[in-house]
Amino acid sequence: MPQQKPKILLERIALIGIGLIGSSIARAVKRGGLTAHISVTARSQESLDKAIELGIADSVTLDKVDAVKEADLVIICSPIGAYRPIIETIAPSLKPGAIVSDVGSVKQAVIRDLAPHIPKGVHLVPAHPVAGTEHSGPEAGFAELFENRWCIITPPPDTNETAIEQVSQFWQALGANIEIMEPTHHDLVMAMTSHLPHLIAYTIVGTATDLEKSLTNEVIKFSAGGFRDFTRIAASDPTMWRDVFLNNKDAVLEMLQRFSEDITALQRAIRWGEGDILHDLFSRTRDVRRGVIEAKQEKMYD
Amino acid sequence: MPQQKPKILLERIALIGIGLIGSSIARAVKRGGLTAHISVTARSQESLDKAIELGIADSVTLDKVDAVKEADLVIICSPIGAYRPIIETIAPSLKPGAIVSDVGSVKQAVIRDLAPHIPKGVHLVPAHPVAGTEHSGPEAGFAELFENRWCIITPPPDTNETAIEQVSQFWQALGANIEIMEPTHHDLVMAMTSHLPHLIAYTIVGTATDLEKSLTNEVIKFSAGGFRDFTRIAASDPTMWRDVFLNNKDAVLEMLQRFSEDITALQRAIRWGEGDILHDLFSRTRDVRRGVIEAKQEKMYD
Repeated sequence: MPQQKPKILLERIALIGIGLIGSSIARAVKRGGLTAHISVTARSQESLDKAIELGIADSVTLDKVDAVKEADLVIICSPIGAYRPIIETIAPSLKPGAIVSDVGSVKQAVIRDLAPHIPKGVHLVPAHPVAGTEHSGPEAGFAELFENRWCIITPPPDTNETAIEQVSQFWQALGANIEIMEPTHHDLVMAMTSHLPHLIAYTIVGTATDLEKSLTNEVIKFSAGGFRDFTRIAASDPTMWRDVFLNNKDAVLEMLQRFSEDITALQRAIRWGEGDILHDLFSRTRDVRRGVIEAKQEKMYD
Repeated sequence: MPQQKPKILLERIALIGIGLIGSSIARAVKRGGLTAHISVTARSQESLDKAIELGIADSVTLDKVDAVKEADLVIICSPIGAYRPIIETIAPSLKPGAIVSDVGSVKQAVIRDLAPHIPKGVHLVPAHPVAGTEHSGPEAGFAELFENRWCIITPPPDTNETAIEQVSQFWQALGANIEIMEPTHHDLVMAMTSHLPHLIAYTIVGTATDLEKSLTNEVIKFSAGGFRDFTRIAASDPTMWRDVFLNNKDAVLEMLQRFSEDITALQRAIRWGEGDILHDLFSRTRDVRRGVIEAKQEKMYD
């Protein structure tokens, strides 16, 4: 458990989008008393009503400009595909000295879309909390989501050091551990740890649903044999993930190509009954699990 | 929770192999008081010592014949590749009226290897409890492993009905739900729900470890983004899984071919920026998750 400092870090925070991540941030900020005011904007009145009902917003508005104009920290919590229209709308109204951050799973594309629009005197500090669940929407959030998870910050060259420090402190106050990384490198690491696993999970669940109906029903019935773990990942938000793949194309295609070569080699080993090749790989992969547990990225029964 | 009937179902049970599944059976049998005597045989004295230490065996022996000769029910709990030498060794000593069963994840190959050696008057009733964890060995077992899980029974044609009933009652007493299935059909369903997911998980974890060392370390460090779920599956017993793939070749290759076509189609959609194709699939797969939860194959936070 991180130590809660009931200390205001930033006078006013604006959240653009109040889904799983946005609402988890709002809850953690409220719990920690980290700001005097959270303003929330979203595309639907329904989400805003929900934010009020949940008591995680001090003010809500459908007007993005209204939401951000006094904010010291603006966090974009929308699918990546929506960033460009958002920044075009809010840029002229950002307060001098304000910080614009985000939570997107891809960072080069985010900088490409946001940086040209950031006014002089406003600081762009992109961030990516490596945390989530398969659930979506304002109700799905919880204040503990970021505890002991990584938050990767990928500042463009020459970013104001104080702004980086403020975003770091903010995420630390939410319980996260901070890693500063090059955007290019972030996208490569995430292509392997997150984007490719999601693509594979979506694919195999799709493959199963394309079987004849009775067989698909049995796959669901007997899913405890391994398949159910993939269904959890493949239940993640479709729009968010579409935008991830469209915006991290090169790194995902590179990792996917490696994966395809490797599975083709295994396919060949199965076809020709080459048990040693299978056994060698299956033994090697056990060590990785130990590494994951030692890196505290997994409780034994998470 | 299944109702515990402290009633002896079978006078004497022999377990050949005392790993995760064998030791879980032994624990559940002991807990339920389902037999007067469990004899355990295994390949190593170390496993047998552990079984005694854990209090889950009434007698242990390295001699398979000794273990099975008085048994009413013999359950082979070894990797499938070991079945043929096992049955060749024990067949002449099986008691008339005895039942030979197993827990293997493939059923056609099991019947191919066992059936020709079963003496007249002995009953072959193959079974597959669809349950497990990534942990191996006698210490990894627990009595609750089979509760509310499926146990699929795949009797060859003309199997004695009373023997099928006895095996069904045995697994029900361990908390499992029973499904009777054709061996061919079992192998096809499991290829999709269990074998292909394991093959894919092993592959992606292998792909990640083949990256340059520093990148592999980062993949482990940031594995919470999705990768860690695959590492759990890819930590399963290598020998057991080698034997599964070698013994369910046709069905696994069929499902793998379908998966490869599907992921190639997604690869193309990513390359050409066809977001609609991605979004359509990602929306469709969410429903499968609902099916899994409704089928009670998953607690929300399993």
